[in-house]
Amino acid sequence: MNDPDASAYYDEHAFGDSVGIGDRPALLVIDLINAFTDPETDLGSNVNGVVEQTGRLLDTFRDRDLPRYFTTVAFEESYGDAGRFIEKVPALRELRLGTDAVAVDDRLAPVDDERVILKKYASAFFGTDLATELTTNGVDTLVLAGVTTSGCVRATAVDSLQHGYRTIVPADAVGDRAEPPHRANLVDIDAKYGDVVGTDDVIAHLTDDNNDDTA
Amino acid sequence: MNDPDASAYYDEHAFGDSVGIGDRPALLVIDLINAFTDPETDLGSNVNGVVEQTGRLLDTFRDRDLPRYFTTVAFEESYGDAGRFIEKVPALRELRLGTDAVAVDDRLAPVDDERVILKKYASAFFGTDLATELTTNGVDTLVLAGVTTSGCVRATAVDSLQHGYRTIVPADAVGDRAEPPHRANLVDIDAKYGDVVGTDDVIAHLTDDNNDDTA
Amino acid sequence: MNDPDASAYYDEHAFGDSVGIGDRPALLVIDLINAFTDPETDLGSNVNGVVEQTGRLLDTFRDRDLPRYFTTVAFEESYGDAGRFIEKVPALRELRLGTDAVAVDDRLAPVDDERVILKKYASAFFGTDLATELTTNGVDTLVLAGVTTSGCVRATAVDSLQHGYRTIVPADAVGDRAEPPHRANLVDIDAKYGDVVGTDDVIAHLTDDNNDDTA
Amino acid sequence: MNDPDASAYYDEHAFGDSVGIGDRPALLVIDLINAFTDPETDLGSNVNGVVEQTGRLLDTFRDRDLPRYFTTVAFEESYGDAGRFIEKVPALRELRLGTDAVAVDDRLAPVDDERVILKKYASAFFGTDLATELTTNGVDTLVLAGVTTSGCVRATAVDSLQHGYRTIVPADAVGDRAEPPHRANLVDIDAKYGDVVGTDDVIAHLTDDNNDDTA
Repeated sequence: MNDPDASAYYDEHAFGDSVGIGDRPALLVIDLINAFTDPETDLGSNVNGVVEQTGRLLDTFRDRDLPRYFTTVAFEESYGDAGRFIEKVPALRELRLGTDAVAVDDRLAPVDDERVILKKYASAFFGTDLATELTTNGVDTLVLAGVTTSGCVRATAVDSLQHGYRTIVPADAVGDRAEPPHRANLVDIDAKYGDVVGTDDVIAHLTDDNNDDTA
Repeated sequence: MNDPDASAYYDEHAFGDSVGIGDRPALLVIDLINAFTDPETDLGSNVNGVVEQTGRLLDTFRDRDLPRYFTTVAFEESYGDAGRFIEKVPALRELRLGTDAVAVDDRLAPVDDERVILKKYASAFFGTDLATELTTNGVDTLVLAGVTTSGCVRATAVDSLQHGYRTIVPADAVGDRAEPPHRANLVDIDAKYGDVVGTDDVIAHLTDDNNDDTA
Repeated sequence: MNDPDASAYYDEHAFGDSVGIGDRPALLVIDLINAFTDPETDLGSNVNGVVEQTGRLLDTFRDRDLPRYFTTVAFEESYGDAGRFIEKVPALRELRLGTDAVAVDDRLAPVDDERVILKKYASAFFGTDLATELTTNGVDTLVLAGVTTSGCVRATAVDSLQHGYRTIVPADAVGDRAEPPHRANLVDIDAKYGDVVGTDDVIAHLTDDNNDDTA
Repeated sequence: MNDPDASAYYDEHAFGDSVGIGDRPALLVIDLINAFTDPETDLGSNVNGVVEQTGRLLDTFRDRDLPRYFTTVAFEESYGDAGRFIEKVPALRELRLGTDAVAVDDRLAPVDDERVILKKYASAFFGTDLATELTTNGVDTLVLAGVTTSGCVRATAVDSLQHGYRTIVPADAVGDRAEPPHRANLVDIDAKYGDVVGTDDVIAHLTDDNNDDTA
């Protein structure tokens, strides 16, 4: 098979249609915490571009007063809440509740009522009340930003589709520790779970007068 | 970045440890239904090798009287139960409740009390009572076989880890429509969610007298 | 304490406020299947009044083209999917997949695309994709009808609140095998989970021109 | 109908069988936080007896080194995470993250690795990773203690059964703000979800040499 990533297959077989942005999008900023944004740490990498694009999305969602949520991942000292995850990925031991490592990067610090949802696993939906918040707020579309594309972003994209949300992943607002898994997961997401677009596309859609909240 | 798939990064950073097979493994045969195993259909591909290896796993689990489950995915005529999934992947329209397309491939036909769990989305855990069955049966390890590596297998592997199960993916018992997503997803799974091994490894472990149910 | 049912306590302590009907209500008809509506069976009781009021609700929701769902509960021959439930309530053995016992009562037969959701446990949300259907359809309010008040209705009301829905329980459209648990559970629901009202109230709200879908 | 609480009906119709304690029970101490145990507060009541019996259960589970978990319920300043719950029960506003009101009562203070699970709703399973902890620890039985019988205990008992656990509710180790809902909910639980026993029964079972962990 010569197809480097299955894109041609998907194009020919009715995969990867666009679902689009609905009437009430929310922004979910996934795990842009110090442990992941500091390249000096064991879990971190250089994701300055991701931080920058996510900042632009945050500004737009704040301006339009649309719902914004952050996630972090952090464990008890006992790691009793880390299940099989920490056996599989011992590097996660760095993520301790109450430490600076699990605080959101200062460049994207939450303001006002923006909530940081504590999760223990890859998907922002798993073991959290995120879905209830989205229902309470009448959200129909989830825009995902953050890290990593092959980890928590992918897992959250799958769950977002499964929970019934139009799912949007701006490729330049998500990132990974290496380029190949970043690209491979974007292909999978675009084929089956959500629309992979650019940050500019999302901002243009939200700031276009023809696409207001009641459109 | 020269690393073709991030494996080197994971090796150096305490990702991808082995979690191993526990005392009470169950086998989950994912979506080996006619629509996916018949290469002539829009959703299908040649996965004869996967069917063969899965058959060997089934034999072993049956011999040892360990729990086995199958999944299928099928929708109402209205597709009201297909949510955003069918908007994203129109090819799924082929999967209609009660049709031969969504029946398990005859080569792997369920016997006795083996149950076919009906799901609507990628993960076998989502919107099903699979987790309850596993708890009732005291399962601590889930061995995944079937298709596709980049779709339902990956989504189920993530959820299996999240639900607390030791997760085992025999690389030759799972398959995809193209080789690149198959390989890329196995790298992700092995780094973060489950142990990627061979079918022979699983069978050897289960039939080794030193690894009986009470080990 | 002389309060027969804690109502006075709740009145004085900021419990039991009304949450009201939102912009997009859906009707959920819970377990009005032959096994429960036929008083001659082991699980059934005389709930003709419940069937009648539910019929009126169905008519109203159909007229307004608002979402309607039914549930049933049914198990495999092996009862492998019945977990601890069937150990606790052996009477559930009557509920077998594919039998007339688990079909919706003819007086309320689903029409067109109305879906019957198969559940295995008390809550209509547990192990089903109901929440995803509600999100896809933009539902913000769930009106519950059916049986039994102390069983599946109560469990579904709790989950409905937990999932973020305004929850409405018309007292005369839900019923039980005995009056005391019916009344006691309505007190609990009204204090903590949903608004207990009359079928007439719901119909009046939905047919009042001042309460249209965009109100 | 003369049956005051449906018990006679259940007795005659194969409801309410005993499921018993399994090989690996865990103790869940539900919401025994200052806001609920201090009778002077808006949400509290005199539950000294419940605290005392729960203390005895804790001692036994600690002695046998069996898993123990606590829950608390607490909300952000914005109450954005309180969904419809706080609209229905405004008294919940008292439960603020980081305050003494939501700390476990000093008489039952967690020790060592005992974890306090933060929930937002009635069931300890909803929006938490409790189920994953139980799977990781191989738990097959959940013993529930705490408050309130008609609220979080009942909701957790239903979910415990649904998740596949043998569910045990010692009647004197759970309590409510009033006696009638306490009693009515114990009848419902015993008929359909879990075994209602005495604290002495649980302790006797766990300390009996014939009922050790491998029994």
